[in-house]
Amino acid sequence: MRKRDLETCFSPALYRPDENRESIVVIIDILRASSAICTAFANGALKIIPVGEVVEALEYKKRGFLVAAERDGYVLDFADFGNSPFNFTREKVEGQTIVYSTTNGTGIINLSKSAFMTIIGSFLNIGALTEWLAGQDRKVMLFCAGWKNRFNIEDTICAGAIAEKLMATNCYTTICDSTLAALDLWSLAKEDLRGYIEKVAQRSRLRDKGLDDCIDFCLTADFTDKIPVIKNGILVDNIL
Amino acid sequence: MRKRDLETCFSPALYRPDENRESIVVIIDILRASSAICTAFANGALKIIPVGEVVEALEYKKRGFLVAAERDGYVLDFADFGNSPFNFTREKVEGQTIVYSTTNGTGIINLSKSAFMTIIGSFLNIGALTEWLAGQDRKVMLFCAGWKNRFNIEDTICAGAIAEKLMATNCYTTICDSTLAALDLWSLAKEDLRGYIEKVAQRSRLRDKGLDDCIDFCLTADFTDKIPVIKNGILVDNIL
Repeated sequence: MRKRDLETCFSPALYRPDENRESIVVIIDILRASSAICTAFANGALKIIPVGEVVEALEYKKRGFLVAAERDGYVLDFADFGNSPFNFTREKVEGQTIVYSTTNGTGIINLSKSAFMTIIGSFLNIGALTEWLAGQDRKVMLFCAGWKNRFNIEDTICAGAIAEKLMATNCYTTICDSTLAALDLWSLAKEDLRGYIEKVAQRSRLRDKGLDDCIDFCLTADFTDKIPVIKNGILVDNIL
Repeated sequence: MRKRDLETCFSPALYRPDENRESIVVIIDILRASSAICTAFANGALKIIPVGEVVEALEYKKRGFLVAAERDGYVLDFADFGNSPFNFTREKVEGQTIVYSTTNGTGIINLSKSAFMTIIGSFLNIGALTEWLAGQDRKVMLFCAGWKNRFNIEDTICAGAIAEKLMATNCYTTICDSTLAALDLWSLAKEDLRGYIEKVAQRSRLRDKGLDDCIDFCLTADFTDKIPVIKNGILVDNIL
């Protein structure tokens, strides 16, 4: 098999749908949407319906759906819970369809819908994700959610960790500066990931709101082998 | 004096004019526009008129102006020269007004015109630039030109080098993930800057076109103490 291209995008504002129609897009929003989605499926959730607008999430709630919805980390008042992975317990989500709206995560899912395939990545499923990608004959785009269209460090280092595993398979090549930078930042972060994350802006945002209890968990490798994938606009539990 | 905010923007697609009306914006496009502009003024150029469109540059040429214009590294056929710093020799530019249009550089200059002040940064003027900035009571935005709206490594490490010097003055503070990432990438690059630059995409682009002869020069610190600044849409030779 020829070597496949590996690219990274640091923000929805930099994403180019036309250049990724044939790509497998990996959405990375580790604090906290992509970690929460992996956790939900690990705990038996059936489907997750991503919605961009609050009003849309409210409509689903009125129709009786279980709704996870936050803005800037805060749970919306009508929602059943927010987007901490700790909310998506087996007791709450097993066998359930969940409607999910977050600050960054769901908008980016909609943006990538013209890609060949869109899957969800985080440290929680990094082993299964990279093992599966190594067997696909497709360009891979690591799409960092960032924060309100800005670059962020935590998604970038997760992209770097994924890139390191993919490059180690010898199945991928890259001439993308964003991927090279992500690899370099990961090389600095990986010896003390928790310490490195201390400085990032989202760390402060979550701490200020008392929402930082899940950070250690979100940095845990291989909690699950689920690779959530979008089919017809809806997240289902596994690519396989 | 209170500590001032230091921020970094990785691409014109991420730049927010409304958030930088009170900022000093430093435009960084080291391979090659911002290096060429610093060189031109070091060699006695009087003014540089940045223009975005090729047709506009052509109009100036018809009116008898000296025109530097390139797209994707190639000199446009009607232009007097392109944007290698080596073109802007004292013989050619001393006392001259130059009309200048490049792939990335001039568009970004127009984008930042609503800022409090827009100046030009590169390794060539890094000492003078950072010394001057340390005395200003303003937020500083390090605005990397990138490449066709993409992130690039070479402008990012120059931003990191500038950020390192500014943070060392104790006059600045940052909670900007892009600045923190630029500082980290610079920390990896600085011991062997020329070796580090070998891997970046623009290095390959310039080499493929035989335009890479200026790279060592563009990585040279403190070639000049000029700090080019935009006044009424035109670049003049020094902030002071």
